[in-house]
Amino acid sequence: MSATVHRLGSRTQPSLDPIMALVAQDMNLVNAVILDRMQSEIPLIPELAGHLIAGGGKRMRPMLTLASARLLGYTGTRHHKLAAAVEFIHTATLLHDDVVDSSDLRRGRRTANIIWGNPASVLVGDFLFSRSFELMVEAESLKALRILSGASAIIAEGEVNQLTAVRRIDLSEDRYLDIIGAKTAALFAAACRVAAVVAERPEAEELALDAYGRNLGIAFQLVDDAIDYVSDASTMGKDAGDDFREGKMTLPVILAYARGNEAERAFWKEAISGRRIADEDFAEAIRLVRSCRAVDDTLARARHYGQRAIDALGGFRACEAKDAMVEAVEFAVARAY
Amino acid sequence: MSATVHRLGSRTQPSLDPIMALVAQDMNLVNAVILDRMQSEIPLIPELAGHLIAGGGKRMRPMLTLASARLLGYTGTRHHKLAAAVEFIHTATLLHDDVVDSSDLRRGRRTANIIWGNPASVLVGDFLFSRSFELMVEAESLKALRILSGASAIIAEGEVNQLTAVRRIDLSEDRYLDIIGAKTAALFAAACRVAAVVAERPEAEELALDAYGRNLGIAFQLVDDAIDYVSDASTMGKDAGDDFREGKMTLPVILAYARGNEAERAFWKEAISGRRIADEDFAEAIRLVRSCRAVDDTLARARHYGQRAIDALGGFRACEAKDAMVEAVEFAVARAY
Repeated sequence: MSATVHRLGSRTQPSLDPIMALVAQDMNLVNAVILDRMQSEIPLIPELAGHLIAGGGKRMRPMLTLASARLLGYTGTRHHKLAAAVEFIHTATLLHDDVVDSSDLRRGRRTANIIWGNPASVLVGDFLFSRSFELMVEAESLKALRILSGASAIIAEGEVNQLTAVRRIDLSEDRYLDIIGAKTAALFAAACRVAAVVAERPEAEELALDAYGRNLGIAFQLVDDAIDYVSDASTMGKDAGDDFREGKMTLPVILAYARGNEAERAFWKEAISGRRIADEDFAEAIRLVRSCRAVDDTLARARHYGQRAIDALGGFRACEAKDAMVEAVEFAVARAY
Repeated sequence: MSATVHRLGSRTQPSLDPIMALVAQDMNLVNAVILDRMQSEIPLIPELAGHLIAGGGKRMRPMLTLASARLLGYTGTRHHKLAAAVEFIHTATLLHDDVVDSSDLRRGRRTANIIWGNPASVLVGDFLFSRSFELMVEAESLKALRILSGASAIIAEGEVNQLTAVRRIDLSEDRYLDIIGAKTAALFAAACRVAAVVAERPEAEELALDAYGRNLGIAFQLVDDAIDYVSDASTMGKDAGDDFREGKMTLPVILAYARGNEAERAFWKEAISGRRIADEDFAEAIRLVRSCRAVDDTLARARHYGQRAIDALGGFRACEAKDAMVEAVEFAVARAY
């Protein structure tokens, strides 16, 4: 038990560098697994999968598996295949998300569905999803399999839940949190938790890592949703205003609608229903979310979950891995500034 | 070892009734698992999944798992969850197939993508796919998990392979067989094989059941592809001519193109490239595949694989289950007459 109290905001420029340095060697091995297992005799598969996998993602989720293992002092290699499996689940989800949202830009590059079409994106996503399960089976832990297959089902449920909430101006903050808890945070949680499973640690440590990942995942998604109303395509690699134009209900809109006067609520109803999505409408939306502090308070909510993620690590002794995992949270919540 | 020699064509009206009667009690339990596990708090999920799952499919694949277990004299219940998992994989594949092919009719009913849209079909397919892995994990056999996750990856590869072969008039019979071996036969093979795994039988029996399922699957798909050129929507529950209009290269076309004169080859090139897909073009296509016996010979190929499926069972003693599994093959290859 460490007496060090970590508080969010203590560093002025938090960075992912420490966690990336911590796992760099392991990540090389995981990347080798990823590159090896996205291969296929059907050339379109590595071509399409490689576009996204090599496309500059931060490998946030496998990084968390590797860092968690380091935190626990685990020195084996069983988690490498699980980390690759986690990245494959995430990549498959991104491919299907871009089909569902008809997105044309991700991480600053054209999306696979735009280049190769929806059918190819759906099927290569299915392939990566299947490969992720093959990798999990090879890790030979039924418990890790249970955690990751459960997370996969929850992700899909969250995606469907979000789909049925699109263009629903009356979406509550609670249901929104359910959605992001499922579609984003469940995989963060599972990615961290499986490290404790292969390291054969007590359940309390499993649950602590689950809580770290889950709260970090929620914070991460809240910041993403805030960024859609403060940034532009050049700085975040996706189109700012995508959520707005797609009628996606995120916390900035939920708060702005709740806090708006009658005219403002009328604006949001029309916008989210898809009748006001021109550039000047998006400018108006940005003006409204800022004036009622909806973006600031979305980021304050993110800091709340970030602090919970940090405190979930309280039981682990101070070490380089713990410091890096704390700073990763600080980085995640500081991205929008 | 049985001395009985089973030959295709010995029965005039083969039926699925014996195999359905053989597994009826088990199938009720499997259906209960299926209904239970397609539930979710997100109402759209059971609604959409139920449309397809309750939509009159024959449950051919779980039926094969159950019949194979009976053939082996297995009296446990570990295969029930695997049988349900197999049906979920199949259902997820159908949902995604209908998106990929933009189909509007399946089993005589409107497809889910037409009723609920492509996004919902993609995501509910992902959900069922995840659930299938949860079910496999619950069956607690890493070997069965390896077989089924491997089959899932092969199915996805086969689907991508087929996608890249669409509108390719030069597709060879070999590559076509690769495609259907992956997209259809791999799951038939795995469905049969996992019964031997949970029954803990020697590898020779595993492989015999794998061969039975694989050859039956190829025969089944060949007959399906032939039916597209001999039937109409009212008799087979999907639109006749779907493959033709989608530019899908199937064996009837491969044979008709190979056997055609210059004018006929010119017709096929235009048709498969999508420039001749009117009703009168389809009528001409039917005339051509018939006049060169391409449909008859597709069905002859199907009988070849059907006979191999039957012979793969040669090592098993004569019993009710074996008779029913033989007759299921006879039914599969006789469907087009």
